[in-house]
Amino acid sequence: MRKKKNNIHFSATQLREFSTRTFTYFGVPYDEAVLAADVLAYSDEHGIDSHGIARLKTYFDLLRAKKINPRPELRMLRERASVATIDGDNGLGLVVGPKCMEIAIQKARLHGSGWVSVCNTNHYGAAGYYPVMALKDDIIGLSMTNTTKGVAPFNGAEKMLGTNPIAIAFPGLKEPPVVIDFASSAVAYGKVEIAGRMAEEMPLGWCIDKQGNPTTSPTDMMQGGALLPLGADKNGSGHKGYCLAAMVDMLSAVLSGANWGPFTVPFAIDSAPTERQVGKGIGHFFGAMDIDGFRDVNEFKSNIDDWIHTMRNTAPIPGTGGVLIPGDPEREAYTLRMKEGIPLHPEVVSSLKTIEEYTGIKFD
Amino acid sequence: MRKKKNNIHFSATQLREFSTRTFTYFGVPYDEAVLAADVLAYSDEHGIDSHGIARLKTYFDLLRAKKINPRPELRMLRERASVATIDGDNGLGLVVGPKCMEIAIQKARLHGSGWVSVCNTNHYGAAGYYPVMALKDDIIGLSMTNTTKGVAPFNGAEKMLGTNPIAIAFPGLKEPPVVIDFASSAVAYGKVEIAGRMAEEMPLGWCIDKQGNPTTSPTDMMQGGALLPLGADKNGSGHKGYCLAAMVDMLSAVLSGANWGPFTVPFAIDSAPTERQVGKGIGHFFGAMDIDGFRDVNEFKSNIDDWIHTMRNTAPIPGTGGVLIPGDPEREAYTLRMKEGIPLHPEVVSSLKTIEEYTGIKFD
Repeated sequence: MRKKKNNIHFSATQLREFSTRTFTYFGVPYDEAVLAADVLAYSDEHGIDSHGIARLKTYFDLLRAKKINPRPELRMLRERASVATIDGDNGLGLVVGPKCMEIAIQKARLHGSGWVSVCNTNHYGAAGYYPVMALKDDIIGLSMTNTTKGVAPFNGAEKMLGTNPIAIAFPGLKEPPVVIDFASSAVAYGKVEIAGRMAEEMPLGWCIDKQGNPTTSPTDMMQGGALLPLGADKNGSGHKGYCLAAMVDMLSAVLSGANWGPFTVPFAIDSAPTERQVGKGIGHFFGAMDIDGFRDVNEFKSNIDDWIHTMRNTAPIPGTGGVLIPGDPEREAYTLRMKEGIPLHPEVVSSLKTIEEYTGIKFD
Repeated sequence: MRKKKNNIHFSATQLREFSTRTFTYFGVPYDEAVLAADVLAYSDEHGIDSHGIARLKTYFDLLRAKKINPRPELRMLRERASVATIDGDNGLGLVVGPKCMEIAIQKARLHGSGWVSVCNTNHYGAAGYYPVMALKDDIIGLSMTNTTKGVAPFNGAEKMLGTNPIAIAFPGLKEPPVVIDFASSAVAYGKVEIAGRMAEEMPLGWCIDKQGNPTTSPTDMMQGGALLPLGADKNGSGHKGYCLAAMVDMLSAVLSGANWGPFTVPFAIDSAPTERQVGKGIGHFFGAMDIDGFRDVNEFKSNIDDWIHTMRNTAPIPGTGGVLIPGDPEREAYTLRMKEGIPLHPEVVSSLKTIEEYTGIKFD
C-alpha cells in the first residue's frame, strides 16, 4: 500500500486475459484456464494483492518445469452421500479447487451438505473465492487449505505448519454477504516481506528468530526464524492459533492423504520438497451447507442483515473506524478497482514481463 | 490454580452422584440427569474447572426459578439426509447437547456426515465433550456454541459477542486423540476474575475498559469493559478472533433461529435477558464426519500418530515445555485427578452446600 504512487494500473479484463493465455500456453484447456484466471482475478479485484496475478510467475515457473500437471484428471478416491475424497492429479489448485467446491455444492443440494477433502493438489489462490462460489445457491460454503511451512507451533522454535487459512461466507438479504477469510498465523508472510523491504521493525508477536526468541527484525525471521500462530504467545493465547492451524492441516491433508505439517510441498520453483514425503501434494478441504436444510432461507438472510446492522452499531474504539463486517475491506477495494483499475507493484509488472518474454504473449 | 492449597479434594463418583441427584430433584428424568452429570464431570475430571460442578449452582438456580425446562421434548424443525435443525425446548444444554450430537453422529454413519444446528437451548458445558463422544465410532466430531455477550468485536468498545468456543477431535491409532477446544476470545472471563480476586494487573491484550481503551485492570473490565477477541488488536490481528466469534454465532444461532450477538440469554439467575429477543434461547452447532467416508480409517489414525510424533519433536522455545498436542493438558489433569481426586475451590464447595441446604441432598 505504501508504494502506491509507483504502482501501475491495469484493467481487470487485461489481467484475466493475460493469465488465461499464460495457462493455455502450457496446455491447460481453455475453460480451465479461464477458471484459473478467475480465481486469481478474484484476489486482484478484491484487494488481496498477495494471492492474485502477483503469483502468476510462480504458477508459470512450475508449469514450465512440468512440476504441475496442466491437464489433471480428477479421481474420486472415496465417496458417500455427503462426503468425498478427491485426488487432484497434481493439477493447478486454481482448477482442482473450484471443481471440488462444485462437488461439495452439488452434494449440499442433494443431501443438505457436502464435504470434500482433496489431496495431490497445489496452491489454490485466495481461500475466500470458494465459499463465495456457493452464495448464489443460498449455500454456506467453507474452504481451508494447508500451505508450505512457515509457522511455529505454540512453544516451538521452528517452522512446522503453514499459514493454513479458513474461509466461510454467509449471504445477506439486502446486505452484501459476510465473507470471512483469514490465515491462522498472527500475520501473513507478506507483511514481514514489506517490513523487510522498508527496513522497518515489526511489532512483537509476529515472529521469532531461529533460536525461538521473539524478534522485531524481519531479517531474523527470514534467516531461519518463523511466523507465530494467531495469538502469538502465552499471554495472547498462541495455543489457539496453533489449534486452528492443526485443524486445517488435519482436515485438508491428513484426511485426504496429502502432505501435512513440515512436509507440505513448497509453492516456489527454487525450493525442493522435503526428502521425506508423507502423502501426495498439498491438501484442501471444502464444505457446503444448504441453508434451506436448516431454516427458511429468507428468514436466515434477513437475520444476517439484522446481525450486520447490529454489529455496525457497536460503539467504536476511539480513533478507529469502528466495527467492520467481514468482507467490507474487499468490497471497498472492489468498487475502487472497478473504477480505477488494478494497481500492480513494479516488481509484479516485471515478473509478468518475464512471462511475456518467454511465451510471446503480449502483456501491455 | 494458585489457591490450590486451600482446595478440598472429592472423588469423581461423589461429584457425579451429587450432580445427578440435584438434576433429578427438579424433575429431570434419571437417565438425562446422569447424562448432564457426565458432561459436568468431563470438565472436572479433565481440569476444565470453569465448566464443571462449579457451574452446578447456576443450573440449580435456573431450574429452581423454572427458567430451564427439566423435561424438554426435542423437536426436529427441518431435516435433510445430512443436516437438521432442532428446537431444544428450553432444556438443559447438558441434555439437549449430547442428544443433538448423537443425531449428527447417526447421520454421519448413514450419509458420511451430519450437521445439527440447535435453538432454544442453554449452556452446554465444555465444548470438547461433544467431539470426544464421536471418537469411539471413528468419527471426527465438532461442536460450537454461542454464549452470553462478553467480547467486543474488533475495533468495538462494548460487549457484543460471546466467548463462542470451537471444539474438534481427531482419533489416533496408538496415540490418544487430538482434542481441540478453545474460546474465540483472547482469554476466558475466568482469568479476569482470578486476576481481580488476586488484585493483580492483567497483560495488555486481554481487555478494554468501558471507553474502549486497553486496560490491565480487572476492575475496569468488570465495570462496563469487555474481553478482546483472539488476537486482541490491530498488530495481533484481532479481526481474526472477531471473525471466528462471528462464524460460531452464525452457525449456532442465526442458522438455528436462536438469539445471537448481544441478544444471547445470560447464563446467570441475576441478569435478565435483553428486552429485544431475536430468537429462542442460545444456539449450538454440532458436526460429525465419518473418517471411513474419506479415507481408510487405520491409515488416517496412523497418520495422526505420525503428526503427533512430528510436532512433539519440534525444537522447543527455550524456557518453555516445548510443543504440546491439543488435549495433553486435559489428559495430564485426568491422570492426576483419577488418583488424587478432584480439587474444588472453597467457594465452589460453599455453592454446593447451598444446594444441599435447599434440596436436602447430602454433599459430603
